[in-house]
Amino acid sequence: MNRKEHSVQRKEIAVNKLKSLGERILEDVNQNNVPAIKVPSRGTSNIVYDDQKRYYVLGDRYGQRSLGNVKQIKKIAQMVYVANFCKELMKTGKTATLREMYYVSEGWDVDFGDQQESNIIGEDLEVTLGMAREDLGLMPEEDGASVYGNLTVKDDDVEISALKSGKSGYTISPTIDEVEFVDHDVKRVIAVETMGMFHRLVQEQAYKKFETLIVGLKGQAARATRRFLKRVNEELNLPVYVCNDGDPWGFHIAMVIISGSAKLAHVNHDLATPDAKFLGVTASDIINYDLPSDPLKDIDVLRLKELLKDPRYKDEFWKMEIKKMIKIGKKAEQQSFSKYGLEYVVDTYLPEKLDAM
Amino acid sequence: MNRKEHSVQRKEIAVNKLKSLGERILEDVNQNNVPAIKVPSRGTSNIVYDDQKRYYVLGDRYGQRSLGNVKQIKKIAQMVYVANFCKELMKTGKTATLREMYYVSEGWDVDFGDQQESNIIGEDLEVTLGMAREDLGLMPEEDGASVYGNLTVKDDDVEISALKSGKSGYTISPTIDEVEFVDHDVKRVIAVETMGMFHRLVQEQAYKKFETLIVGLKGQAARATRRFLKRVNEELNLPVYVCNDGDPWGFHIAMVIISGSAKLAHVNHDLATPDAKFLGVTASDIINYDLPSDPLKDIDVLRLKELLKDPRYKDEFWKMEIKKMIKIGKKAEQQSFSKYGLEYVVDTYLPEKLDAM
Repeated sequence: MNRKEHSVQRKEIAVNKLKSLGERILEDVNQNNVPAIKVPSRGTSNIVYDDQKRYYVLGDRYGQRSLGNVKQIKKIAQMVYVANFCKELMKTGKTATLREMYYVSEGWDVDFGDQQESNIIGEDLEVTLGMAREDLGLMPEEDGASVYGNLTVKDDDVEISALKSGKSGYTISPTIDEVEFVDHDVKRVIAVETMGMFHRLVQEQAYKKFETLIVGLKGQAARATRRFLKRVNEELNLPVYVCNDGDPWGFHIAMVIISGSAKLAHVNHDLATPDAKFLGVTASDIINYDLPSDPLKDIDVLRLKELLKDPRYKDEFWKMEIKKMIKIGKKAEQQSFSKYGLEYVVDTYLPEKLDAM
Repeated sequence: MNRKEHSVQRKEIAVNKLKSLGERILEDVNQNNVPAIKVPSRGTSNIVYDDQKRYYVLGDRYGQRSLGNVKQIKKIAQMVYVANFCKELMKTGKTATLREMYYVSEGWDVDFGDQQESNIIGEDLEVTLGMAREDLGLMPEEDGASVYGNLTVKDDDVEISALKSGKSGYTISPTIDEVEFVDHDVKRVIAVETMGMFHRLVQEQAYKKFETLIVGLKGQAARATRRFLKRVNEELNLPVYVCNDGDPWGFHIAMVIISGSAKLAHVNHDLATPDAKFLGVTASDIINYDLPSDPLKDIDVLRLKELLKDPRYKDEFWKMEIKKMIKIGKKAEQQSFSKYGLEYVVDTYLPEKLDAM
């Protein structure tokens, strides 16, 4: 099944799920029952780290929204309107941002106090149907990462080479799920935190040297980026390495790619790439390479201590590196390797790190 | 002269300017004079709005940095090292970010207290040589805007169509000056503030309807974006319209594209597009289209009052719209047109605004 068929199939599933949500309500009405919707709970106590899956999932607790409860009537009405809006998007083949949906809702018979309120209903729908909101046509505002290297994708009927899209590469769009991987000639994927490092790797031809795709994350990875990394890992069987700065924030940008976030436990099965590996700057690197560093701030130490308690960081590797960082009291950016010349990161550091894997 | 030749020529000019900076110092030494460098002043009192050019420029005041002044010895040494680093970049055909240069400087005989200090020396060099730092190989970290529409560019030997680069379009890279415009079939350029609106315009096929390039600014326009907009305006003779949110921040994002910033007065001749027009949401639009709006915050009002005093906003149009916005006490985002349906902005609003121009 190619991606277009896959995408059509997902849309059909989405439409069917949306329809049956409505039909269940109608059925209740026809049988003189009080309509109610079961919404899986997203409360902290229902977010569980799944050791087998290696990411956060939702437990089996759920809440009941009933039209018999005066407080819940509005929430159900909002949900029905949002579901209907999504069905229309599916039918017309369009997408909308959460912000656009909020403004569109100005024309509905049920209102939202602010966008936060309509966002939450969007999440309710995600979790109730067990589908990511992208599958319902509700797209994130922000674009994904930049990709450079020997990968050809097909978007609608247009073939795009990530090697021939300019110096900044191919941009992962929010609709990445509809994009087909046509061809590639790479052995791995290296994702970096900053566009400064992305351009360094492109300029030093790291894509040739390591037969790799270079992905510029631009900080915290967008949802579209996480879906892209998961797909190249699982569909193309490519190992994914995340090369970030050596500080708690760099660690966590990588970890959210690897094991998902708690907040999005209900869609981590579509977002997490548990086999991705951290290949960024560690406390050991700071020592071994004698890197220019900055002293840890109080907030860095606080964050590192939080990470130590986080089930996603329970590996020996992480425990050791986090403790070491707290001990030496230093952090370092990836670009600090420039101390040894602009080429050093590609000529020396990355080969050594990849070898050690 | 094609872009490649143009770029080679600019590089030669840059190398020559860098060399003669060094030679002047050597000459002074050989003639037993105390070496000194004239650096045009970037102080507020030397930043002047030029009515003819319609952007900020530097006045003719300058400071003298002399090796005879103990306080200035280090600054001159830093400048010579930075100049030498830039010359090496030119020679090897590489580029570096300011952050990379800061780390590279760890290996120099002269040091910088922090990156802020090396950034300022980079600016000193820009202003002394009268060239943008991109011309010296010092690139911004961040990428530019996304471009969608019928434009073909050539980067090195690769031809890229901004109509065939995926849903998120072609990304303007920091090295945009080396990119050649090969072919186009558009009549205008419409730049929008957010990627949400960018994707809306792509999805509603605004590029066909208005025979336009669509540019997604992603907030404040990056330097590469401003250089791109200036080039399409001047090289391709395309009118440029900036469609932003109706608030002081949206106004100013547009104005910096049009008339440059005071802080970059020394390079505005390379960055400003004085003929670009604001086509975004105005106070009049908020009233005429009965748009969903938010009340102005104190900081919005403060900012609007600052704009009223700013020479870049002296047109009758701006004075009137800013005063009206303060009077009605409301601001509105571009996406608020979704109140009338997702298509409204392309089917109704933009045609009406373009007609009125």
